[in-house]
Amino acid sequence: MSQYRVLIDANDEKGLVHKVSSIFYNHDLNILSNSEFVDKENNKFFMRSVVDGVVELEELKSSIEKILPNNNSSVKVISPKKKNIIIMATKELHALGDILIRHEAGELEANILAVISNYDSLESLVKKFDIPYITVSHENLERAEHEQKIIDAIKSFDEVDYIVLAKYMRILTPRFVETFEDKIINIHHSFLPAFIGANPYKQAYDRGVKIIGATAHFVNNNLDEGPIIAQEVIHINHAYSWRDMQRSGRDVEKVVLSRALKLALEDRIFVYANRSVIF
Amino acid sequence: MSQYRVLIDANDEKGLVHKVSSIFYNHDLNILSNSEFVDKENNKFFMRSVVDGVVELEELKSSIEKILPNNNSSVKVISPKKKNIIIMATKELHALGDILIRHEAGELEANILAVISNYDSLESLVKKFDIPYITVSHENLERAEHEQKIIDAIKSFDEVDYIVLAKYMRILTPRFVETFEDKIINIHHSFLPAFIGANPYKQAYDRGVKIIGATAHFVNNNLDEGPIIAQEVIHINHAYSWRDMQRSGRDVEKVVLSRALKLALEDRIFVYANRSVIF
Amino acid sequence: MSQYRVLIDANDEKGLVHKVSSIFYNHDLNILSNSEFVDKENNKFFMRSVVDGVVELEELKSSIEKILPNNNSSVKVISPKKKNIIIMATKELHALGDILIRHEAGELEANILAVISNYDSLESLVKKFDIPYITVSHENLERAEHEQKIIDAIKSFDEVDYIVLAKYMRILTPRFVETFEDKIINIHHSFLPAFIGANPYKQAYDRGVKIIGATAHFVNNNLDEGPIIAQEVIHINHAYSWRDMQRSGRDVEKVVLSRALKLALEDRIFVYANRSVIF
Amino acid sequence: MSQYRVLIDANDEKGLVHKVSSIFYNHDLNILSNSEFVDKENNKFFMRSVVDGVVELEELKSSIEKILPNNNSSVKVISPKKKNIIIMATKELHALGDILIRHEAGELEANILAVISNYDSLESLVKKFDIPYITVSHENLERAEHEQKIIDAIKSFDEVDYIVLAKYMRILTPRFVETFEDKIINIHHSFLPAFIGANPYKQAYDRGVKIIGATAHFVNNNLDEGPIIAQEVIHINHAYSWRDMQRSGRDVEKVVLSRALKLALEDRIFVYANRSVIF
Repeated sequence: MSQYRVLIDANDEKGLVHKVSSIFYNHDLNILSNSEFVDKENNKFFMRSVVDGVVELEELKSSIEKILPNNNSSVKVISPKKKNIIIMATKELHALGDILIRHEAGELEANILAVISNYDSLESLVKKFDIPYITVSHENLERAEHEQKIIDAIKSFDEVDYIVLAKYMRILTPRFVETFEDKIINIHHSFLPAFIGANPYKQAYDRGVKIIGATAHFVNNNLDEGPIIAQEVIHINHAYSWRDMQRSGRDVEKVVLSRALKLALEDRIFVYANRSVIF
Repeated sequence: MSQYRVLIDANDEKGLVHKVSSIFYNHDLNILSNSEFVDKENNKFFMRSVVDGVVELEELKSSIEKILPNNNSSVKVISPKKKNIIIMATKELHALGDILIRHEAGELEANILAVISNYDSLESLVKKFDIPYITVSHENLERAEHEQKIIDAIKSFDEVDYIVLAKYMRILTPRFVETFEDKIINIHHSFLPAFIGANPYKQAYDRGVKIIGATAHFVNNNLDEGPIIAQEVIHINHAYSWRDMQRSGRDVEKVVLSRALKLALEDRIFVYANRSVIF
Repeated sequence: MSQYRVLIDANDEKGLVHKVSSIFYNHDLNILSNSEFVDKENNKFFMRSVVDGVVELEELKSSIEKILPNNNSSVKVISPKKKNIIIMATKELHALGDILIRHEAGELEANILAVISNYDSLESLVKKFDIPYITVSHENLERAEHEQKIIDAIKSFDEVDYIVLAKYMRILTPRFVETFEDKIINIHHSFLPAFIGANPYKQAYDRGVKIIGATAHFVNNNLDEGPIIAQEVIHINHAYSWRDMQRSGRDVEKVVLSRALKLALEDRIFVYANRSVIF
Repeated sequence: MSQYRVLIDANDEKGLVHKVSSIFYNHDLNILSNSEFVDKENNKFFMRSVVDGVVELEELKSSIEKILPNNNSSVKVISPKKKNIIIMATKELHALGDILIRHEAGELEANILAVISNYDSLESLVKKFDIPYITVSHENLERAEHEQKIIDAIKSFDEVDYIVLAKYMRILTPRFVETFEDKIINIHHSFLPAFIGANPYKQAYDRGVKIIGATAHFVNNNLDEGPIIAQEVIHINHAYSWRDMQRSGRDVEKVVLSRALKLALEDRIFVYANRSVIF
């Protein structure tokens, strides 16, 4: 008996729950949990089921595919296992450190293949955890050259499921983003869409806000505009300088990034129309 | 075409989602939203579906009943309409006022049949909204006599779906609670189970807590121990006297009570094992 | 013995707390509470003290003025009393209703002189509370004409301390804003500076955010860009349509607006450099 | 020019702010920040000032002592430096890990002298950070013997400012607590005073709460009843088993413990009457 995650993304049509649950029933699968969402406006149907039983993955997948609408349908049947991730960082410790500790605690369904940074500042921390650290300095390099080196470093690993930008402070080019489409998770240190771009805490200070936040999102080619996975905020007051905001904000950033990463590792995220469905 | 809410509470067994969704499909009902929860430990299955189509309520109900396990199963098929509520209060305005305003705004699926209080302090407010106000003073009465008068007042109305205790500050006897079993919603001015009983803000002050809260729950015969529907908290600090806590706490109380009331009116609550499932 | 609020806004310089507290001491005033804030970057000093004793207001004010730096200093000595407010609304009930209920409960240090709206939708509610309701329809009027009529209506009252925009859905011209400079408090239905302008919930939906919020701020001549007084947020998820966001957002809007109003009525707000200091 | 933290805890009496600020002024000290709190009910005065200038610590302290009421007054003048802490843990990684990462990031004004545990489970983690790890197994030992060994281990270090119980899962005896009075900070995995004692998440599950929390507090001789420093909560729902609560609760526990530790390290906590004043 094994557990499987079944993810369905299709155009909505009457009877889908009935048809899918019939297939589970006929395969003698037990439903452990079940989440559905219908977006009426966009006529979309999403379903994530965790089932247990004995089944041939490809057979289950194709059984479901047969009963879904022909266009725009997608089915995944996943046997849970650790995903391979690469973390990119620059100099800040907190978000990376939180992931390393969670990984050490066995909380994450992930193998950390490597940490890649444009500086060597974090090397001593990462090495403590016996994780490869790859410094790819951007000095004296064109942006395209620098990114190519990073792409090469990433591609030197067999299979990479997610690239986690744990305060990687350089803007990625469209080429990089396309190379790893739908695989890059970023933490932005503001409550998006407020304060897109550089130094959001300074922007927040200048605007005199009473709440600051952080946003984890998939990266697409518009700066800080990819589909949002998770957001969190904290209250601040007039006594906070932007440095204080930055300091306090770190606690939010690390929590939000780790939360988004867990959702991705557990196959809980669907993305469409620049938004996410989280089960 | 009408909308119906289908609520199922049964012992869990393989295939329930399949069987129920087949019935919906065979009745040509469209599922607008669907929530399920299986409590493995207690082997319980809960489902709330909103469907639309044309159906005979009793027929749909009995079709579903047939496929459920024989024992401990319950099905409700509800055609949404305004529920009848009676509000009980003492002297405080805020929780009652919030409900009155929401009712006026058309936010609540409810008819307020009357407000009953042991004082006349709130009469002028309630009368503004053309809602009957019934003062049942407890002075010079035994508790049983007083409650009997309230029971009589409530029973003078044809059908009462919920009794909302909007800061009704007297303890109810088991007899009262049994008379209106599963129908009484109370707001307790603490984060239960902390600070059961009288003057929880004073208790919270004495304990030196940094967070205070409020709890909406169904009333059973153990003081402040019925199934919890909703809770909310706010941060406080050392500068709060217990009067300050009381003042700030009112904003939480009214929000939590109104939230719980809406959940009840929209048939979103299941209760079992002294806990609630909220869809 | 009376209580006084002393508000000081000055350029910072060494010894201010010493000098001010000496004046309190020499006037035999007891400090009930004391808040200070120094903004190093802008070299600004803010202080709010609540004192009790027997004192001549003007004399205390001028004693303090003498020890402050010559430029940019301001002192207010206030004997707490109810402030006069006018509420402006359009058609939505919730924010206005919350203020009316708080007013009825005696929670606000305010006299509500009138409610002014461009529709008569809220008249029956407001009249219940024996508060004048003035409909100033914008139909068939130029914006300037319409605003002039509102200005005339406001000016028909002797002294107006604050104008509260409780979901007044029309943009105010610079002329209106200048007429009531630093007196207009608005609630914007987003977490500013995200989603400035029309239909922020629709904007939030389109961006796929996971948190929505509301912002109370003083109004200046840049749309939704005045100094922020208070902000609050709630978590949402993929199942929220923008109508759902709007519905849930109302609870945040009313809480934030009432909180900001109380801060203003209790003389707890300083404004400078487009930001607020809240004591 | 150096910075000093001045902490005053005294019976309240008129003119204290004046007298203390006069002393600062006469010593040519600049006030960088200033917080005061008067507890009227208990007639207590608390003040924390950060000043900069050139001053002899003992002289400043005795100047202030002279102007305070004779009884129950306490003054500390502190030149900020790293405090020495010892962390005690059992088997769980998250709270300890968070402190280690913050320490590594330079966020904490602390030297971690050692981690002491009754198991060796966390040794490999702690050793990565070049921090001594001392296993003091409780097996085959009376409680008194075991604690004596821990006391000996702690006393082998010269000066210990705080002992941080980062999920140390054994109850401490009064003797231990008295040995390190006012120095022990504990994280309890519930929103105290709810769910005192063993397995609070199981207790929370059984009660059917909708919010869980964590509480950092100083340890005194009544189990989980010492003065509270910080509390935080998260919302949960019916789908959470108590294991899920435990898992989610860890994120709150680590945040709250680290927050409380920072407050202690920065000399921001006063304790009296089993409550804390936090500046």
